[in-house]
Amino acid sequence: MIIVMKSGAPEAEVDRLTEELNQTWGLTPEKIVGRYKVVIGLVGDTADLDPLQLQEMSSWIEQVLRVEQPFKRASREFRHGEASDVIVNTPNGPVHFGENHPLVVIAGPCSVENEEMIVETARRVKAAGAKFLRGGAYKPRTSPYSFQGHGESALELLAAAREETGLGIITELMDTADLEVLGEVADIIQVGARNMQNFALLKKVGAQDKPVFLKRGMSSTIEEWLMAAEYIMAAGNPNVILCERGIRTYDRQYCRNTLDLSVIPVLRSLTHLPIAIDPSHGTGWAEYVPAMAKAAIAAGTDSLMIEVHPNPQKALSDGPQSLTPDRFDRLMEELAVIGKAVNRWPQPEAVLA
Amino acid sequence: MIIVMKSGAPEAEVDRLTEELNQTWGLTPEKIVGRYKVVIGLVGDTADLDPLQLQEMSSWIEQVLRVEQPFKRASREFRHGEASDVIVNTPNGPVHFGENHPLVVIAGPCSVENEEMIVETARRVKAAGAKFLRGGAYKPRTSPYSFQGHGESALELLAAAREETGLGIITELMDTADLEVLGEVADIIQVGARNMQNFALLKKVGAQDKPVFLKRGMSSTIEEWLMAAEYIMAAGNPNVILCERGIRTYDRQYCRNTLDLSVIPVLRSLTHLPIAIDPSHGTGWAEYVPAMAKAAIAAGTDSLMIEVHPNPQKALSDGPQSLTPDRFDRLMEELAVIGKAVNRWPQPEAVLA
Amino acid sequence: MIIVMKSGAPEAEVDRLTEELNQTWGLTPEKIVGRYKVVIGLVGDTADLDPLQLQEMSSWIEQVLRVEQPFKRASREFRHGEASDVIVNTPNGPVHFGENHPLVVIAGPCSVENEEMIVETARRVKAAGAKFLRGGAYKPRTSPYSFQGHGESALELLAAAREETGLGIITELMDTADLEVLGEVADIIQVGARNMQNFALLKKVGAQDKPVFLKRGMSSTIEEWLMAAEYIMAAGNPNVILCERGIRTYDRQYCRNTLDLSVIPVLRSLTHLPIAIDPSHGTGWAEYVPAMAKAAIAAGTDSLMIEVHPNPQKALSDGPQSLTPDRFDRLMEELAVIGKAVNRWPQPEAVLA
Amino acid sequence: MIIVMKSGAPEAEVDRLTEELNQTWGLTPEKIVGRYKVVIGLVGDTADLDPLQLQEMSSWIEQVLRVEQPFKRASREFRHGEASDVIVNTPNGPVHFGENHPLVVIAGPCSVENEEMIVETARRVKAAGAKFLRGGAYKPRTSPYSFQGHGESALELLAAAREETGLGIITELMDTADLEVLGEVADIIQVGARNMQNFALLKKVGAQDKPVFLKRGMSSTIEEWLMAAEYIMAAGNPNVILCERGIRTYDRQYCRNTLDLSVIPVLRSLTHLPIAIDPSHGTGWAEYVPAMAKAAIAAGTDSLMIEVHPNPQKALSDGPQSLTPDRFDRLMEELAVIGKAVNRWPQPEAVLA
Repeated sequence: MIIVMKSGAPEAEVDRLTEELNQTWGLTPEKIVGRYKVVIGLVGDTADLDPLQLQEMSSWIEQVLRVEQPFKRASREFRHGEASDVIVNTPNGPVHFGENHPLVVIAGPCSVENEEMIVETARRVKAAGAKFLRGGAYKPRTSPYSFQGHGESALELLAAAREETGLGIITELMDTADLEVLGEVADIIQVGARNMQNFALLKKVGAQDKPVFLKRGMSSTIEEWLMAAEYIMAAGNPNVILCERGIRTYDRQYCRNTLDLSVIPVLRSLTHLPIAIDPSHGTGWAEYVPAMAKAAIAAGTDSLMIEVHPNPQKALSDGPQSLTPDRFDRLMEELAVIGKAVNRWPQPEAVLA
Repeated sequence: MIIVMKSGAPEAEVDRLTEELNQTWGLTPEKIVGRYKVVIGLVGDTADLDPLQLQEMSSWIEQVLRVEQPFKRASREFRHGEASDVIVNTPNGPVHFGENHPLVVIAGPCSVENEEMIVETARRVKAAGAKFLRGGAYKPRTSPYSFQGHGESALELLAAAREETGLGIITELMDTADLEVLGEVADIIQVGARNMQNFALLKKVGAQDKPVFLKRGMSSTIEEWLMAAEYIMAAGNPNVILCERGIRTYDRQYCRNTLDLSVIPVLRSLTHLPIAIDPSHGTGWAEYVPAMAKAAIAAGTDSLMIEVHPNPQKALSDGPQSLTPDRFDRLMEELAVIGKAVNRWPQPEAVLA
Repeated sequence: MIIVMKSGAPEAEVDRLTEELNQTWGLTPEKIVGRYKVVIGLVGDTADLDPLQLQEMSSWIEQVLRVEQPFKRASREFRHGEASDVIVNTPNGPVHFGENHPLVVIAGPCSVENEEMIVETARRVKAAGAKFLRGGAYKPRTSPYSFQGHGESALELLAAAREETGLGIITELMDTADLEVLGEVADIIQVGARNMQNFALLKKVGAQDKPVFLKRGMSSTIEEWLMAAEYIMAAGNPNVILCERGIRTYDRQYCRNTLDLSVIPVLRSLTHLPIAIDPSHGTGWAEYVPAMAKAAIAAGTDSLMIEVHPNPQKALSDGPQSLTPDRFDRLMEELAVIGKAVNRWPQPEAVLA
Repeated sequence: MIIVMKSGAPEAEVDRLTEELNQTWGLTPEKIVGRYKVVIGLVGDTADLDPLQLQEMSSWIEQVLRVEQPFKRASREFRHGEASDVIVNTPNGPVHFGENHPLVVIAGPCSVENEEMIVETARRVKAAGAKFLRGGAYKPRTSPYSFQGHGESALELLAAAREETGLGIITELMDTADLEVLGEVADIIQVGARNMQNFALLKKVGAQDKPVFLKRGMSSTIEEWLMAAEYIMAAGNPNVILCERGIRTYDRQYCRNTLDLSVIPVLRSLTHLPIAIDPSHGTGWAEYVPAMAKAAIAAGTDSLMIEVHPNPQKALSDGPQSLTPDRFDRLMEELAVIGKAVNRWPQPEAVLA
């Protein structure tokens, strides 16, 4: 932490401040007297200090600059530069999310509508190569009058699809009260963009065992996103997957959000956690999904989440961004071309004789 | 709702679509054949229709334009153009929030730290003219390592300050699990910016009686904000106060957020609900609070929420944006000048002989 | 300037760097060795150094933090804390823009359409209390097919309105080639939002004598805006007025831009230059102009620019944000209430016997 | 164009309006009477109409919705769905930019510093596979005190590099006054992000023959960008290449801009013009360039512009985002892997016997 004093700060005030910094926090302040301003460097453990709190220690302070990252467990340094590996046990076997593993594809509808559609979708996406089925039981909707998801009964349908296909299940938790019932079905628990800073929810999913798929908030900075991961990890759960799903910008005419693929190299340098990209929400339109999915693989994503619906025109939510199963089949072939070029495409499983 | 077909859409497809619109939704589609494009107007009750769902009915649809507002109970029309009046019973008597009432000032610290500080602050802000005491028991903090509020014990301290001064209490609810205990103390329940689209929470505060102070999400549109109010109202609670607290923009160097005062005239034309402005979070710096508080009154706000801390440099959260009680005294005098000029300043109470 | 080294930077590299900093730039680097990182403070004249260039001096540099503001002539310190006073000589006498003077109102149509309309508008806004007439001869339009302004012939009409009413004229320069002819008519030269970083234009208006009305770019930071003013001042022209006209944010449904009134207290602390607010472009809708104009005065603006058109429904550009002369008359009465309350309203001129 | 009337609009007013629409603009208005609102569709040639102007025709109009795109020459329909092909003649032969041609790589330093560096860089990027050399003679810099480019003398150095290597030259025009001298050297003229809406400049480069490389403005919508291209095309020059270089968003901590790769599929559907991506400015940091360059190819870009500097730590501008020639060599090998996978990588030239 570095404190920059205002130009003209009295020497006595600087001395008082350095003394207080030393006595209150046990820090060793070191002073640099510049041409116009005095700068104080704080030596010691400052990671938990709040720059805003320091700011208030003197009205002669101009600004407080943080030198160290506020996240610890989520930082790449925490694992000495090694990527972490989130392993999820599905009926079809363990699936590894991480930089040193093949791309993991998650696919399925926005919301679970009925047994036939979810089981059929599961079969189709499995055949095309997906390892996980997505599907919402509880849906965050802007309007109270829109379809809110079928809730608990939808969880049962997901369980049926899981049993039928062996795919892992990922579904969103919106209310801490639903954690237990949802945790019985889900292999991965999703925290949605609107709840990325619902700290009560983060603490709860941090205090249980299932891996957490943490979507980036609509206007969250990368630092805030990693701090949300830190909440989960600090509560005891190290298995977090970070999913970019488009941010809010000034231009929403042709895409509903702006998919920020630069998070891939940025997160890679900041954190050891696996990275996923959701081009369906990221663009909002099915026709733009293939180009962005390919781009995400080329940029190095560890996972892709793609909306697939057997009949998008009848979808109860998010129809325009869903692919049909046929289009998804073709997409997987297109993705394989890029995936193989960058050595991230899963090998066909060995057939036991 | 208006459907714009792509240029070149076959006549047969347009006919098929209008037929389906009529049969599925009971709407009367009317067709306008333009030079390049066909436009279909939907006559009937379309307020609950989801434009995204309509979009999927044909791949020849270019766009679906909403003509009617998606909010109903929150709309100005819902009360036939009349402003609503949120009345809160405090020990000192009822306080009215609304366009036809004097400005209501809410003041107090970011978080409740101990009994002395909260009671002392309450006394000072009451003396200066505030009607409500704010103070956080549960605090949403970006970092899991920052002070998270004293929780339930802080609620007791707020109760003590209420008893001591007769001020109404407003405090933030973060977890649905805390609603009951918090509701015993709070006269108004605050939903914070980060939870504006925590729909589980909105439904819960909508299903109880206390008025709700709904802060605008950091990057929420006005429409999304009114839809969040609609969630509360649709669940049965008509007493919602809308509070602007600064939005997130590209420039965060000098202010932590961009306080969007244009919401005042915009909301006035869209909704009957009372409007509040929080210049403390809106700017993030105490020195900018007075100018923005004055501006808010001139623009017509119904309420102001201002952070006051007896000793900002020792504040456990948000120090730099808090005013001292002395500075708050002076601010109230400055505000009175504007408030009187626009006839929104409270009259001194009649002294009973 | 402060250099933060990456964690683990070798001591030899730190030594090499400090030596190079000293030899190349004549700076005295002072080193603080923290628990994890080394920080180097640079003592000497660093205002012209580019942090990005320093960054490249070693791959072990994590970040370079600027401690001093990059603007000089525009800074408040440059005038030792005193506000500057931009004086414009109009036929009706000198008008002063500045913190210690009454509010200056500028009014008129978006573009000059014909002699009758511009002279009539000039008469009306003068009668209501405006000191300057605005009107575009050259118009920046998003579409090449929209009305582009009447150009040079419109300048003649502005001259006629000036002669008729004695109002000062402010009009926009878009092309350096038009500077001479425009300078013959304009009392103040406007640089529009789209040209705020047209550095060729800034240098040219800096090299002539007329005051410059510098609109903030649509997505310019306050620092970039002050650096644009610095371009003009560094070229020799100290008479710059800063005009906020709304910034671009994610929500454009109800207002065309987000009027950022917090620039008023922020600029007041950073710069000595006069401040103007344009609520017409800032909101894009005439009905929101009065509330925002009142707010701007309460927040302390030195000037207001307001669009007035005798017949908005026939306006060739920007109709929806223009007030009629009658509405402008009433607005001036409303503004007087606030202006008098804050002691910024012009006194009626003494009548000579 | 569609006009939505306010709820409760009197029938007589609707009739008056439709009559006026017909008489003033020769349009055939068609009326749809909905449950709450009346909607008027305008049949006829409405592409040049300004929605804002229509809005003013009656105070009973709620909104005016554009149904047709405002750009014509830039639209995909203008070429009946065919991609256009911008051919640039360089000393080494013609280079084709377009969807049906191999990827074109442009590389070079931010600014031209001296003959040795520019010729050396040209040789290295040519050897690695670039077809064009970039290099600024005139530099847009935020500060008037930063290096502004060597101007005309830098153009001579670019000419020397062109002669030496046969590479095409692309360089930025900032002032209309420099067009002639710059046009003698440049094979492609760049219009920078800050000048994307400098309409005087757009008209000038539209009235000459050299292809124009049009960078997207920092906060320009896709529609505004295409309208800027339309300015150039309407002035007579059909050879425009659209270059995305990162937009401004709320998060600038780790990347200087947010590179918006979704423009690739979006522009492909809207326009026939070739698309380029600049990952160097788009991220601001050399270490993030490779991932984003690969992503851009996978998403379908027609061209890449990449900053290369022989000695980034001595660069007079934009050092941190420049690659060394050695790193660029490796990058080209990495890009070839993706480029070949998607069949957009240039074939090695046949060797003449």
